[in-house]
Amino acid sequence: MNKEKLLALVQPDIDRINETMRSELAETGNSLLVQILEHGIFNGGKRIRPLLTILAARLCAFTGMPEGLAPEDELQPPVNLYRLAMVFEFLHGASLLHDDVIDNAGERRGNPSANAVWSNTHVILAGDYLHTRAMTLAGVIGGGHVLSLIGNATSAMIEAEFLQIQTAEGINLSEENYFAVLRGKTGALIGAACEVGAYFADASEEYQAALRTYGNALGLAFQVVDDLLDYLGDRQKTGKAVGNDFVEGKMTLPLIYALNNCPQKEGDDIMVLLRGESDERQAHIDLARRFIEKHEGFTYARQGAETLVEAAIEALTVFPDCQARKNLEGLAHYVLTRKK
Amino acid sequence: MNKEKLLALVQPDIDRINETMRSELAETGNSLLVQILEHGIFNGGKRIRPLLTILAARLCAFTGMPEGLAPEDELQPPVNLYRLAMVFEFLHGASLLHDDVIDNAGERRGNPSANAVWSNTHVILAGDYLHTRAMTLAGVIGGGHVLSLIGNATSAMIEAEFLQIQTAEGINLSEENYFAVLRGKTGALIGAACEVGAYFADASEEYQAALRTYGNALGLAFQVVDDLLDYLGDRQKTGKAVGNDFVEGKMTLPLIYALNNCPQKEGDDIMVLLRGESDERQAHIDLARRFIEKHEGFTYARQGAETLVEAAIEALTVFPDCQARKNLEGLAHYVLTRKK
Repeated sequence: MNKEKLLALVQPDIDRINETMRSELAETGNSLLVQILEHGIFNGGKRIRPLLTILAARLCAFTGMPEGLAPEDELQPPVNLYRLAMVFEFLHGASLLHDDVIDNAGERRGNPSANAVWSNTHVILAGDYLHTRAMTLAGVIGGGHVLSLIGNATSAMIEAEFLQIQTAEGINLSEENYFAVLRGKTGALIGAACEVGAYFADASEEYQAALRTYGNALGLAFQVVDDLLDYLGDRQKTGKAVGNDFVEGKMTLPLIYALNNCPQKEGDDIMVLLRGESDERQAHIDLARRFIEKHEGFTYARQGAETLVEAAIEALTVFPDCQARKNLEGLAHYVLTRKK
Repeated sequence: MNKEKLLALVQPDIDRINETMRSELAETGNSLLVQILEHGIFNGGKRIRPLLTILAARLCAFTGMPEGLAPEDELQPPVNLYRLAMVFEFLHGASLLHDDVIDNAGERRGNPSANAVWSNTHVILAGDYLHTRAMTLAGVIGGGHVLSLIGNATSAMIEAEFLQIQTAEGINLSEENYFAVLRGKTGALIGAACEVGAYFADASEEYQAALRTYGNALGLAFQVVDDLLDYLGDRQKTGKAVGNDFVEGKMTLPLIYALNNCPQKEGDDIMVLLRGESDERQAHIDLARRFIEKHEGFTYARQGAETLVEAAIEALTVFPDCQARKNLEGLAHYVLTRKK
């Protein structure tokens, strides 16, 4: 299935997710708060997380869905599924708002970041608000089990951020550490988005576990590709400065592999840059990129992402062959080909 | 009942709340994160919110409690009530951590504030973590209704912060606006803490509403007294600089009343200071205090707090006369006499 066909197939769900989010935000009383939330949420995001919840639920075929499915909705998921799916985009949006303050970045996806438009106070509070609304919806719609899954994923995300900050203090060349951070920061919530969809559709534990495995692997692949795009992406498309991770001294898979698999002399030059100042690294982005290229860091990371996508698709083989499964397979392939 | 007797009566509950919080934090994996959470939570807080949840539940006599009450616990509330009560202290702690970043203050209660010890990144993330854990516990232990009550109170808190920021941009002399901010910022969560205790104890709707009314009024009284202590408190006891609200140009009840009830000429001098720079106000704290004193702003605010405490106590008259009710009455009186 090509990308255009996949996007056309999922577009109605994305539209309905956006619509659901708009009507949810309309319940917020303070107009300035609404502005900041809209800036945080309607910023060109791809809606991958809520879409996964919908697709996972659809794959589980809505068999035995406990409530909310009227006869006329047989082919259409109930509105509560969209509201539950939205929780993942709200949580993602809340963490992006707080990241804007933390990173003190001026831009996000080519637009001014929230903290460039409003004060840190406003942006921190708006993130807290989105977080509260997300958790409340998760528990009220999904019940205690769903709330636990989401709460655990969010806690894991924050613990992984701490791990990342702590390991960034040295220069950590461990792939294991790199993947541990990824699992918490990206894998856990995407895995939960898939698992929650299955649980909502009253799927068997086997199906829930399969979709969690799919989501975890997809989340890791997504992030590895993100780290590749940081070096190799087109700024026009990604909206991010090329080589930003290197400038920040952030150790990602391409660089880790190259440093672990090069003659010591060449590695030492890069290590000197990593131990030095960021403006020195800014001036040597091309050098770093050539170094990684030469020592096959990009190839290795790309292969890693492909292996993860294969694992994600493999996890789906417990399901019957149907359009919903094809869509999830297509989404996994799309992760590998995305340019932004 | 004098203050010492009241404190002795509630101390076992406070100890058990602290114990419950310690064992909850022990489940967090990252040791740096735990340090920040402990700094945020074990900082001399009075545990008013969780204590109210316990006392409200006890007042409702644990009749028909749906689950968790084993025969040997008949005189002792079940552990889940303490875990649910703890949610309010966690939420309070999360908002204090974020306030530390927002205010960029160096101190809280006479100790270094979290942002003075760790980076904003650490403190924002630690607040998010506490928030996530609180909301998850609320829903898993209390169910959907409790989660909604807490979610709505937290949303109201944030909307009130926005209202406060927006009105701080002008010099707002409206008492109505002052109380609207207070209801959201303090009343809503304290009201919810009381209502949740009643709901957990399976109390009637009348009892739930009575305890919510008690909590809302108590929360407002608490905050009015806080605003009085800001001008009149002993720095050694409050751990806060005297006159801080005036220096920040924050309009609180004593100042609002005095400005609305003084000869124009005298008010104009204060308005000039309020429109000017904060270091000018810093130099004129004594002048402001004398101005408020002369025009009976402190007397008026004190009477307002007393009226609110009476309303809180009045709300309890639907309950039979028992020790639990006496404790809640005592706590309301304590709000008026507290020095910190």
